[in-house]
Amino acid sequence: MKMIPGGVTAPRGFQASGVHCGVKKGKGDGNQPPKSGRPEVLDQKKDLALIVSEKECAAAAMYTLNRVKAAPLYVTMDHLENGVAQGIIANSGNANACCPMSHENAEEMCALAAAATGLKAADFVVASTGVIGQTLNIAAIARGVPAAAAALSRSGSGDAANAIMTTDTVKKELAVTVAIGGQKVTIGAIAKGSGMIHPNMGTMLCFLTTDCAITQEMLQDALHDIVPRTFNRVTVDGDTSTNDMCVILANGMAENPLIEWKDDNYTVFFKALSEICTELARSIAADGEGASRLVTCTVMDARSEESAERLAKAVVGSSLVKAAMFGADANWGRVLCAMGYSKAPFRPEFVDVTFRSVVGEVTVCRQGAGLDFDEDQAKSILSQDEVVIEVDLHEGEHQATCWGCDLTYEYVKINGDYRT
Amino acid sequence: MKMIPGGVTAPRGFQASGVHCGVKKGKGDGNQPPKSGRPEVLDQKKDLALIVSEKECAAAAMYTLNRVKAAPLYVTMDHLENGVAQGIIANSGNANACCPMSHENAEEMCALAAAATGLKAADFVVASTGVIGQTLNIAAIARGVPAAAAALSRSGSGDAANAIMTTDTVKKELAVTVAIGGQKVTIGAIAKGSGMIHPNMGTMLCFLTTDCAITQEMLQDALHDIVPRTFNRVTVDGDTSTNDMCVILANGMAENPLIEWKDDNYTVFFKALSEICTELARSIAADGEGASRLVTCTVMDARSEESAERLAKAVVGSSLVKAAMFGADANWGRVLCAMGYSKAPFRPEFVDVTFRSVVGEVTVCRQGAGLDFDEDQAKSILSQDEVVIEVDLHEGEHQATCWGCDLTYEYVKINGDYRT
Repeated sequence: MKMIPGGVTAPRGFQASGVHCGVKKGKGDGNQPPKSGRPEVLDQKKDLALIVSEKECAAAAMYTLNRVKAAPLYVTMDHLENGVAQGIIANSGNANACCPMSHENAEEMCALAAAATGLKAADFVVASTGVIGQTLNIAAIARGVPAAAAALSRSGSGDAANAIMTTDTVKKELAVTVAIGGQKVTIGAIAKGSGMIHPNMGTMLCFLTTDCAITQEMLQDALHDIVPRTFNRVTVDGDTSTNDMCVILANGMAENPLIEWKDDNYTVFFKALSEICTELARSIAADGEGASRLVTCTVMDARSEESAERLAKAVVGSSLVKAAMFGADANWGRVLCAMGYSKAPFRPEFVDVTFRSVVGEVTVCRQGAGLDFDEDQAKSILSQDEVVIEVDLHEGEHQATCWGCDLTYEYVKINGDYRT
Repeated sequence: MKMIPGGVTAPRGFQASGVHCGVKKGKGDGNQPPKSGRPEVLDQKKDLALIVSEKECAAAAMYTLNRVKAAPLYVTMDHLENGVAQGIIANSGNANACCPMSHENAEEMCALAAAATGLKAADFVVASTGVIGQTLNIAAIARGVPAAAAALSRSGSGDAANAIMTTDTVKKELAVTVAIGGQKVTIGAIAKGSGMIHPNMGTMLCFLTTDCAITQEMLQDALHDIVPRTFNRVTVDGDTSTNDMCVILANGMAENPLIEWKDDNYTVFFKALSEICTELARSIAADGEGASRLVTCTVMDARSEESAERLAKAVVGSSLVKAAMFGADANWGRVLCAMGYSKAPFRPEFVDVTFRSVVGEVTVCRQGAGLDFDEDQAKSILSQDEVVIEVDLHEGEHQATCWGCDLTYEYVKINGDYRT
């Protein structure tokens, strides 16, 4: 497996674009300088993304578990009922949820994309991210779609990645290649995340493309196994926004032998897809709203993977753990406390807790009781960009890793007045 | 029912005190000026509270649901097995949890209290609140207990209330009187709360005293019905700290006819106890760490009280709702989103959402869809000290109210470096 530059346009036969159409408010022509100084932030004002494939694709998707689902999800479910798609249209700046016209507007986005590209409306996936409950500016989308179609190109992945960002500070795109049956198969992706704390409304969108020849059933199975272990392990509770969606389109243009059962070729594809989703999940966690560091919790030697996951999620989801990580404070009591209310079974008196980062590691709790440790060393370990909280339950053979971020002043600032 | 001044020493036969013994670190003699300018903040450095009754009491308690329970809880459970107690000893500044000597130290606190008061160690309730996993300075407690015993007085409730505060900014004490069988019965209480966001470690302690003559069984039943509808409705998830405890001691000195079944006298007592616990729950929510306002969510016309409670808790527990409340931002989409991931059943398309405060009310969502509303009016409504989010499900006849607070910069500051 090899990481390569690019995103959704890295696989053969895919084109993408991202433009500013006016759903996002703001002065000027949508080319304001970014707020953050990070070089990855290119153009936060882009708000309309288009991705199309030269050929028809097998398509699979996973949707939010939230009981309140935005209209674009229902429209996408409907369009993917036949397992086939050929394009994706997505906007940022408005969730197109909980408004009287939401459903019609989601359908209209597909119709507009179809008209501009010559494809069928029913072959479009549609996604939205942004504020809930405000009417989507469909006129802006109508103006923007022809421009987006005209801008479609083999190098448009970055623009598309920018166009789905909301409060993300870093553009997320990734591609890998693997050899399957002697052919080079490529998987590419763009994603956005951001609201991270309870992962409520920081809608997670991930669009994956591949030139792999694979059946829709195998594609859906792979996604079904991978999403719960990657994107759904970014912070707490299985909480998801109304708009979360992860979609993959496979156009078969790599001309590898068709993957139609779980053979060795499937395994190679599965591992590559898993790797790409893990990396994107990590980058979504690291770029959580206001985050200053990525916090990873691995719970090991658990009785089941489910209980390990539940415990790890409670730890990275605890506001008090998150605030302690912001302060680089080795307050491991909060780790145990979060585990305690996770409702997963474990024996507190068996638990070891270790903090780890690139500069070293320190075990702060053994068999449920505090150890004397060097506070300065702990502070230095916890002051890095990525911090790992390792919990050993000494009860079984299962493990799970979840990802989150610290809780900062910036988070409160971003979310205290998101709509205005 | 009448509110009267005072707290745990308002009922006949109770004395209390609060002193500084040295568990809380800090310069000087523990009489530093408070950080906050609020007049209620008297002396945050007090760290040892003592409450005793002239006569033996019927005693009942509710404990944290956290799987990790601090040693004082186990010791108290043991001491209350016979349903009898005569005193309470409590410290702040250290949770006496997850340390090798925690259990011994909790027992020692009772022994010290017994020696200084002439009562039995097994008749003491013991509680601690503060940092988990650091060894309790039992030598400081040993020095402090005789001073606390010497300071016991009929006007010591305020000192005791101060001595159990951690990051609380407002002292919480309350007392009410009711007439039962021609006698004046008094119930008094002190409480502390504070960490509020996921209510993890902001240990909730509530000590109630009464001169009511009531059996232990009736006392336990009343507490068992009231705590889940009051203290356990302060923010999300039924999350509780390792040290949460609510205890009531009844010494019978009001000489009312003994309440031994659920007759009219029981109802009068129950209502008074319920009122006092509701008020304390509200004040704990309002004084959440860093809170600038109390956020109340009432979910009405639900299919069951349980689902109403779950929905209301999800709303007041959502970090994004809390951050929006901080910004006085009428972002009702976050309310629906939080309800959506609460796992409680409801029909989004039936839901109305109204924001209310002393200056007025505004309905922002009807039948699951946004309404046009006056943003300035909404801002003004949400800028008050108490804000109510009213959700009408239009599905049944049950309702529940939960309490929380907004999420502020101050919360992050307090919790980013709590231990140091």
